[in-house]
Amino acid sequence: MDLSSFLTSLATSFVIFVVLMLLFTCLSARVGNNVVYYPNRILKGLDPVESRSRIRNPFSWILEALSSTEKDVIAMSGVDTAVYFVFLSTVLGILVLSGIILLPVLLPVAITDNGAKSNSNTVSNGTFNELDKFSMGNITGKSPRLWAFFVATYWVSFVSLYLLWKSYNHVSWLRSEALRSPEVKPEQFAVIVRDIPHLPEDQTRKEQVDSYFKTIYPETFYRSLIVTDNKRYGVNKIWEELEGYKKKLARAEAVYGGSKTTSKPEGTRPTNKTGFLGLVGEKVDSINYCNEKINELVAKLESEQNITLKEKQQGAALVFFTDRVTAASAAQSLHAQMVDTWTVFDAPEPRQIIWSNLNIKFFERELRQYVVYIIVALTIFFYMIPITFISAFTTLKNLMKLLPFIKPLARITVLKTVLEAYLPQIALLVFLALLPKLLFCLSKLEGIPTESQAIRAASGKYFYFTVLNVFIGVTVGGTLFSTFKTIQKNPNQIVSLLAQKLPGNATFFLTFVALKFFVGYGLELSRIVPLIIYHLKRKFLCKTEAELKEAWFPGDLGYGTRVPGDMLIVTIVLCYSVIAPLIIPFGVLYFGLGWLILRNQALKVYVPSYESYGRMWPHINNRVLASLVLFQVTMAGYFGVQKFVYTPLLIPLPILSLIFGFVCAKKFYPAFQHPTLEVAAHSLKEQPNLEQIFRSFIPPSLSSDKVDDDHFDDALSQVSRSTSFV
Amino acid sequence: MDLSSFLTSLATSFVIFVVLMLLFTCLSARVGNNVVYYPNRILKGLDPVESRSRIRNPFSWILEALSSTEKDVIAMSGVDTAVYFVFLSTVLGILVLSGIILLPVLLPVAITDNGAKSNSNTVSNGTFNELDKFSMGNITGKSPRLWAFFVATYWVSFVSLYLLWKSYNHVSWLRSEALRSPEVKPEQFAVIVRDIPHLPEDQTRKEQVDSYFKTIYPETFYRSLIVTDNKRYGVNKIWEELEGYKKKLARAEAVYGGSKTTSKPEGTRPTNKTGFLGLVGEKVDSINYCNEKINELVAKLESEQNITLKEKQQGAALVFFTDRVTAASAAQSLHAQMVDTWTVFDAPEPRQIIWSNLNIKFFERELRQYVVYIIVALTIFFYMIPITFISAFTTLKNLMKLLPFIKPLARITVLKTVLEAYLPQIALLVFLALLPKLLFCLSKLEGIPTESQAIRAASGKYFYFTVLNVFIGVTVGGTLFSTFKTIQKNPNQIVSLLAQKLPGNATFFLTFVALKFFVGYGLELSRIVPLIIYHLKRKFLCKTEAELKEAWFPGDLGYGTRVPGDMLIVTIVLCYSVIAPLIIPFGVLYFGLGWLILRNQALKVYVPSYESYGRMWPHINNRVLASLVLFQVTMAGYFGVQKFVYTPLLIPLPILSLIFGFVCAKKFYPAFQHPTLEVAAHSLKEQPNLEQIFRSFIPPSLSSDKVDDDHFDDALSQVSRSTSFV
Repeated sequence: MDLSSFLTSLATSFVIFVVLMLLFTCLSARVGNNVVYYPNRILKGLDPVESRSRIRNPFSWILEALSSTEKDVIAMSGVDTAVYFVFLSTVLGILVLSGIILLPVLLPVAITDNGAKSNSNTVSNGTFNELDKFSMGNITGKSPRLWAFFVATYWVSFVSLYLLWKSYNHVSWLRSEALRSPEVKPEQFAVIVRDIPHLPEDQTRKEQVDSYFKTIYPETFYRSLIVTDNKRYGVNKIWEELEGYKKKLARAEAVYGGSKTTSKPEGTRPTNKTGFLGLVGEKVDSINYCNEKINELVAKLESEQNITLKEKQQGAALVFFTDRVTAASAAQSLHAQMVDTWTVFDAPEPRQIIWSNLNIKFFERELRQYVVYIIVALTIFFYMIPITFISAFTTLKNLMKLLPFIKPLARITVLKTVLEAYLPQIALLVFLALLPKLLFCLSKLEGIPTESQAIRAASGKYFYFTVLNVFIGVTVGGTLFSTFKTIQKNPNQIVSLLAQKLPGNATFFLTFVALKFFVGYGLELSRIVPLIIYHLKRKFLCKTEAELKEAWFPGDLGYGTRVPGDMLIVTIVLCYSVIAPLIIPFGVLYFGLGWLILRNQALKVYVPSYESYGRMWPHINNRVLASLVLFQVTMAGYFGVQKFVYTPLLIPLPILSLIFGFVCAKKFYPAFQHPTLEVAAHSLKEQPNLEQIFRSFIPPSLSSDKVDDDHFDDALSQVSRSTSFV
Repeated sequence: MDLSSFLTSLATSFVIFVVLMLLFTCLSARVGNNVVYYPNRILKGLDPVESRSRIRNPFSWILEALSSTEKDVIAMSGVDTAVYFVFLSTVLGILVLSGIILLPVLLPVAITDNGAKSNSNTVSNGTFNELDKFSMGNITGKSPRLWAFFVATYWVSFVSLYLLWKSYNHVSWLRSEALRSPEVKPEQFAVIVRDIPHLPEDQTRKEQVDSYFKTIYPETFYRSLIVTDNKRYGVNKIWEELEGYKKKLARAEAVYGGSKTTSKPEGTRPTNKTGFLGLVGEKVDSINYCNEKINELVAKLESEQNITLKEKQQGAALVFFTDRVTAASAAQSLHAQMVDTWTVFDAPEPRQIIWSNLNIKFFERELRQYVVYIIVALTIFFYMIPITFISAFTTLKNLMKLLPFIKPLARITVLKTVLEAYLPQIALLVFLALLPKLLFCLSKLEGIPTESQAIRAASGKYFYFTVLNVFIGVTVGGTLFSTFKTIQKNPNQIVSLLAQKLPGNATFFLTFVALKFFVGYGLELSRIVPLIIYHLKRKFLCKTEAELKEAWFPGDLGYGTRVPGDMLIVTIVLCYSVIAPLIIPFGVLYFGLGWLILRNQALKVYVPSYESYGRMWPHINNRVLASLVLFQVTMAGYFGVQKFVYTPLLIPLPILSLIFGFVCAKKFYPAFQHPTLEVAAHSLKEQPNLEQIFRSFIPPSLSSDKVDDDHFDDALSQVSRSTSFV
């Protein structure tokens, strides 16, 4: 790639970005699209656009984003989103502070040398060496000019550590502020109890749990909720069926009733077939059929609920306390002498609980965790093997045998050639697209009890995949597996191999970062894809209000994949920051634009699907730190390649970073694992409604109107409830 | 060493043992020696000998020891001692069960082969090959007879794991029984608070602590005790001086008063000199002088106590709660959002607290810990270097320059030769004798707040020292340092090196074990050394009752060095159990005799100096497991040396052991770190006297009669005290 083609690609990306921004300006101004561009505000019951006067100004959203405070973000989108912005601004700060020193100092130093011609160590891909002049590769080996780069390495490291420290402090404060808030949060009064031992013969599960916790917490125990098996053939299935028929009924009524403005029925009564997918079977009147089915299912659900509550109780429970301090301290304390029984955890928000994982036993969880780790490690290192295997298997010939209907297509020569050439790549793309889902499923299989924790676990796995395979893979060339084979033969090469190959790939990554922010953030802001999907659905599918809402409901920010994606950029920019400082402005643009556009999206579009009060931060901090260590080690290697005699003076840097990580883990991390008592001890705005807190944790399939208190109650908990308010 | 000299050494040891046992029988029957042989019973207010009728039977102590139950041991000597016996009987069980199978099977298999002559792999030290015939070295390489040894390896492993599992369960139960006991134990109502943040300007330290804990525990907080700096030039020094003068006064009065039976003073009034060591200075009347001094010091102490309590408050405190559950749960919960402030720990018994360590800050403790670890690692690997250096420096010539008074001694030729020859060895012996003390001091320097934990830490360090230096050192030959240099050159040799050298040293260790149990336990039982010291002191030094008691006060069992010593035997016997099964009877004798003799000593002699409720067990368990893994790895290596083709089938064994350790750590260990709530929730025999609990934690130097409540109190805690009984 030469300079002109680099600039061309840059310009193209920029044009795409401008076009997408213009599209956003036009489309977001139309009231009909409000549900796509302002769903979060609409769901919160706010006016989509803050002040009508500014609507004509196409850049008003920028002003709004810039003028919004952290408090606004927390109010609109929760602490987790605010913590994500702390991450973006921390990295932005690191890059800006590094750039201010590095660009004006290192570029002149590099450009006035001409070591590249005389120095055989510089590796340059192809003919592109115009930009190479701006990089450390242009410095003559052993030159005293290397001192400038040496100092720059220290500067970047110190700036990073300083800002990370400040941010960790800030996030810790954010978390404690959110947790100490006087609002009643149901999860602060509950704990999850797992690994309940075998039931003694003369007790029900509920009696067992209640008597255990009443002994330990005679004054603060409120009541318990035994986890039941709702899953297979159970209430969940019946409930889902019931909900499905309810939707169908609403839809049939809407079709029959015609437009919602007229109350008089018009049109023919809709009919459907009862068989598979509504394609076969008897033809029936939809409304009558659905009503029948609903009545039938309601009765069935009721009896199944009774059975479930009585007979499908599992060895896990939610236990509620009358105050926050007891709940917070119970979640951190050992209860049983055998530590693998009666294990107690913080309760997450009700919507986050993965019910089916609660009953998994202690050592099964441990075992599952290790099995998953091994699978993930194998995936990271050998992911090319199944893909090669699959693509070898899915040759066009085989495909034609399996799917006879593509035979006519295959006869077209052009298509045939293209298909044959791209099948392996398609297999790879499909794999990469499915990977986050796969990792999330694997994380869930570990037995993790909450959604947010599973997402964090998946995100960590995805981070290792991207950094190892994309960054190191592209840099060193070839897959990780082949690299490891090389390294195995010569273990000392590991650092110098990376260092030698790094400069040559600078332009590849420059283009990569530019493409990612211009096109990626352009698409993000303009929301072209959701917009099209929404309008298509509205036209052809949605009949009822509920269906329409489903069509535009925006989902959340998607940390699971967003953070690892950003992390890859952090790693790339940090590693190249001193070698090729030109990458810093691109990094600044990426995180600056990202901050701006996502601020808009957080305030107006995305609806968080859970709240973990910033528990993501320790992971983010550690991964930025890991990137920093990779940068420091690579730099040490590269200085070695440049034959800089003072290279050992860089050794304190990675040690310092590791000590920093250790101190952070000791000073801040435990408060992210558990709520601290000092925070939980803050007084509440109002006396908590414990009954309501308890109800909020009942899964929807068990909480229909007919199922009243008695099911969850027995004499014991009645007593506890009446005494707890004395 | 040939067979006859081996038998001679064995016989000599045995004769010494018999002599010592006879001595014990004679001496212990004399009433005047009761304080040496039955101090624990005397201190507990019991009759020294249970029934006078049995006194003539020299073996009655054996019957008494055998018939004593675990409950007796706990009653007389505490849970820690009972746990030590669990350790002894576990190892005994492992060895007996192994021996039952291994001896009748392996010995015939080995003796009927004669591979040793044809097999060059067998390493035999010198001419001693009579015993070698009984060992695995006698088996021809690749012989199918090796299968017997292979199965034996599995048998020993499974027996060990099974018994360890049972013992861990049992000790866990013992601990929970002790902790749930309805007796009021002061430490169960208190927690240690360290890392209290800087004092706000408008508060005293006490107000700060009280208000912090009253907010979190409004109902269960009782009061707090701020840790003060009593050490340098403070109350501790004055108090010690005062106690010294009190002793001197008692002594002077005893001398003046003559025998205790007559009330009339006789003899001259004692005098002493006031200067250095009573050797120089003015001659004064002792009784008057001491009385003067005491009066002076009491006043000084009083004012110093006031100053200390008010002005020398430190950033640590003891906090007392009104019930056990709150104290147990507080010790396990995070209190502050910044985890390095307000850190809370279980309180130990008052007598165990190392007051001066309480004020060490969070990260200083971490730092101290790592520095100590590094020092210990260096000591283990390079302990020969300073000794060589010192012994090079302390040649006789240098010594004569430094200590001129040994010159006349050095002129005697025989003595000179001996001294010159043994000086390095003496240096080594002095070092080895001082090592436990040194390791204990190092452990204390880590900032550990309790005596028992410091002893555990020291014992761990001592274990690594002995196993690495004595066992591996003797086996491989030479110091660890030189071994590592060999291994570094050829890293794959590490296992086979050990395996090859092991059989050759079998007889050395056989003799070592025999010497240790015959002579060691003989001395232990007969208590010759304490007896002599006691009688010497009684004759020439002791004048008062208190001094006499000090002379016979027996001290505790000394886990710190006893457990690592036993561990060394465990390691030796396990590692040789299959290679040279003849070692098993020696191991059985060691642990059987040990059990018997120490049972006697625990019931009658030693007085435990602290109680940690079996916290030592997880360490013991892990170290036996480490020995087992060493055994398994060595066996794998030795089978390799014997060219046994199925050697890889041994690989599951160490993996299984590690999984066992992991499961134990997960299932049992946390309950040894913290008291569990289920245990703490058991009801007490009586309403605890909180005032008394609080008083028991006041250090003696601050708790004189004159210092009354007001010093420790202020308005706030008065309130809390009066409300807590409502």
